[in-house]
Amino acid sequence: MNKGIQTQEHHAIVGAGLVGSLLGIMLAQRGYKVTIYDRRSDPRKGKAIEGRSINLALSDRGWRALEKAGVADRVREIALPIIGRRMHDHSGNETFQAYGVGNQCIYSVSRAGLNLILVEAAEENPSLEVKFDHISTGYEILDEVGVSGVNLNFNNRPDIIHDRIFGADGVHSAIREKMTHTNRFDFYQQYLPHGYKEIFMSEDPQGGFRMSEDGLHIWPRGNFMLMALPNPGGSFTCTLFAPFEGEESFGSIKSDDDVLEFFNRHFPDAIKHLPNLLKDWNTNPVSSLCTVKCHPWNINSRVAIIGDAAHAIVPFFGQGMNSGFEDCTTLSSLIDQAAPTNEADWMSLLNEYTRIRKPAGDAILDLALHNYIVMRDKTGDPEYLIQKRIEARIAAAHPDRWKPLYTLVTFSHIPYSDAWDRGEIQQAVMNEIMATTNISENWDNDEIVAQAIKLLDSFESGTTSIARPVPLLSTDV
Amino acid sequence: MNKGIQTQEHHAIVGAGLVGSLLGIMLAQRGYKVTIYDRRSDPRKGKAIEGRSINLALSDRGWRALEKAGVADRVREIALPIIGRRMHDHSGNETFQAYGVGNQCIYSVSRAGLNLILVEAAEENPSLEVKFDHISTGYEILDEVGVSGVNLNFNNRPDIIHDRIFGADGVHSAIREKMTHTNRFDFYQQYLPHGYKEIFMSEDPQGGFRMSEDGLHIWPRGNFMLMALPNPGGSFTCTLFAPFEGEESFGSIKSDDDVLEFFNRHFPDAIKHLPNLLKDWNTNPVSSLCTVKCHPWNINSRVAIIGDAAHAIVPFFGQGMNSGFEDCTTLSSLIDQAAPTNEADWMSLLNEYTRIRKPAGDAILDLALHNYIVMRDKTGDPEYLIQKRIEARIAAAHPDRWKPLYTLVTFSHIPYSDAWDRGEIQQAVMNEIMATTNISENWDNDEIVAQAIKLLDSFESGTTSIARPVPLLSTDV
Repeated sequence: MNKGIQTQEHHAIVGAGLVGSLLGIMLAQRGYKVTIYDRRSDPRKGKAIEGRSINLALSDRGWRALEKAGVADRVREIALPIIGRRMHDHSGNETFQAYGVGNQCIYSVSRAGLNLILVEAAEENPSLEVKFDHISTGYEILDEVGVSGVNLNFNNRPDIIHDRIFGADGVHSAIREKMTHTNRFDFYQQYLPHGYKEIFMSEDPQGGFRMSEDGLHIWPRGNFMLMALPNPGGSFTCTLFAPFEGEESFGSIKSDDDVLEFFNRHFPDAIKHLPNLLKDWNTNPVSSLCTVKCHPWNINSRVAIIGDAAHAIVPFFGQGMNSGFEDCTTLSSLIDQAAPTNEADWMSLLNEYTRIRKPAGDAILDLALHNYIVMRDKTGDPEYLIQKRIEARIAAAHPDRWKPLYTLVTFSHIPYSDAWDRGEIQQAVMNEIMATTNISENWDNDEIVAQAIKLLDSFESGTTSIARPVPLLSTDV
Repeated sequence: MNKGIQTQEHHAIVGAGLVGSLLGIMLAQRGYKVTIYDRRSDPRKGKAIEGRSINLALSDRGWRALEKAGVADRVREIALPIIGRRMHDHSGNETFQAYGVGNQCIYSVSRAGLNLILVEAAEENPSLEVKFDHISTGYEILDEVGVSGVNLNFNNRPDIIHDRIFGADGVHSAIREKMTHTNRFDFYQQYLPHGYKEIFMSEDPQGGFRMSEDGLHIWPRGNFMLMALPNPGGSFTCTLFAPFEGEESFGSIKSDDDVLEFFNRHFPDAIKHLPNLLKDWNTNPVSSLCTVKCHPWNINSRVAIIGDAAHAIVPFFGQGMNSGFEDCTTLSSLIDQAAPTNEADWMSLLNEYTRIRKPAGDAILDLALHNYIVMRDKTGDPEYLIQKRIEARIAAAHPDRWKPLYTLVTFSHIPYSDAWDRGEIQQAVMNEIMATTNISENWDNDEIVAQAIKLLDSFESGTTSIARPVPLLSTDV
């Protein structure tokens, strides 16, 4: 942290959610005046901050950012460790799969609780103010008309001029929407054909958790899945992810009988823990799942977007918040390195921020989509489970050569894009290993490990190349 | 045309451009009351309607729509036939490549002239009105609040309620922008790394055209190209397409000397016809090239988008206007078939419109990108020219089995997506043919034609399959 920069610059952050609050803390710690504007009312003066889901998974990238901002200790108090996946088959049998080795784990935290910690930590900085009930609708950069700065627009309120605006206003970001009108701004918003519905699993009437609280529970069923994450206090938040339409989909479940029949057929060991299944089913909406990509993440020196506003992803790798927090780590490190004092410095700095984080955002978007397939389908597939066991053996024997993709994403700090590339190489190796005769009997043979490393050598040296798609009619302008 | 439907429905069309005017004529002819709103001022009361380019290529799909609307004869009077590509090499040598066989050709038309014909033809319908100087900013569907219809919003004017809104308001459509806020609406806006600048080639001082007027002139130079399309009266509109950045790019041409050096080096036979090169270079902007995809193209029974608003593409296949006109043909045919009398009918009709036209829009987007590579790179490649000659021989010998991709897109009415699929199969065949030993000597051997048809048989029967990309880590949710 560089406390040496003294400046009169006054930055606006739009959105006092998780990423906006954390960025506010980091900017204030670097000597800037900061105002965070949020469309919602102060959660301490009424109901809790609305959010898309009740609990979130915090992992290494997120912790690093929280540590950099000096708030990790406070967050640790509300964090529940999750050591692995607990898969439930149709008969209710559980299979456990550790997320990592040793004491590697992820943490379940309440979105509302974490947000409150971050907002309160932000407000402790004398140079930072949080203004609720401010709905921002866009901006105009003023440099071109003789005035310096950027005008932040609000719904039914006068504009306010700032030196810079950071849009941390989420998947439906108003700041990003304004950016889409900039010439040569690329934007991409795509919904999954799948949605989700939350069902609350209350604590056991005798007190405590109804299922083991150290795991992320999954009922993988191919094209759909049920998931459960523990909450402090003994409850679980269960989420059904399924297609909107089709034979087994939200669209095909029309009556209470359909709901009961569906859960009894697919999740017989879960339904007994869900006394309020029908009530929640009929009350809670089917929410949609949206991915957002765009480029660039800054408009010259004046406007930048961060977190979901720049890269909204599906929740299946538990990296939405973590990737947004990593944006904050990168941005604050760039400020520490560059110590910007004028618009040219900020222009280079924000261009560099886009250059570094855009590929990371693209990669975690793909990784999260990929992990949906893994969770709902592969975790119930015996062949996949053998592959994971073989990978664990390779990683144990050659920890410097092989790290499972989940580990690279969750327990490392290498760029997501490098994790994705490495994942593709390792998957190419595993495709050949899994094609070996009688692999399901011989999976724990040491020869397999040696063979995998040999294959890895040949891919790494370029002797064997990964089959990349070659289009017949190219559109690769 | 079905004149039998008598209805009180009053439809709004946003945009009195080419597609909006043509759709207006078709709706009025079907008994509807129609108001077309346009942000621009009436071109007959001042300067010409602004447009992105001066001339456009009209081909079979466009003509069919104009004929359906009864305006083809008027358009024919301003249409200049173009029979093929005229490629200019570095030494100024020309190679001719016919677009089709017999009297197949495309037509160069002036955007402003065509727009005027369509607006005037539209206004001849007593039930149709065109209102200029109306900037629409979005809409609200009213059905949910007890009123029936849809509110069309304007900048600094009161809202107007209509039964339906058709957004024909182009690549930066305000109607589509409002649709992007609808849950589960997919949207994609991407700019090319290439831009373009127009240079005017005046008529010859002695009168007439400076180059042959029956061709689309191309100076293919790999990563960039110069293009020229004739205008009635003897002039040409020349367009340089090039990357924004890089070694040979708009970014690297900084001074008048750079411009002259660039043109002398790459287009020595063109520069002598461009007396106002420097003036135009310094006056005309470098425009960007944007592609837009979205889904769905309708919001229930009330709102639909058409033309560039739904599928903005790059100009390299000359199909932007033609594909928008084909949208009009499809929509009016659906109205003729369904004779909709209530909202449920319109909902089915507009859903069907999306279902039919969305894959066509996606395919022509890809085809247009692909044709940029063909035009700027392949048309200067001797191997490609041999491939085209071989394809022409196959098509001549087996007209029922083989149609070049360009022919399928330009001189047929099969869906663009079928053209793209067929193009991929034929390209797979040609890849094998072009790998034949000494093909550049033996290209006119009859054996080659027989071999191509045999390969085509094996692809069509599925005996040989086209290599499709198989991702290692799937994100195909």
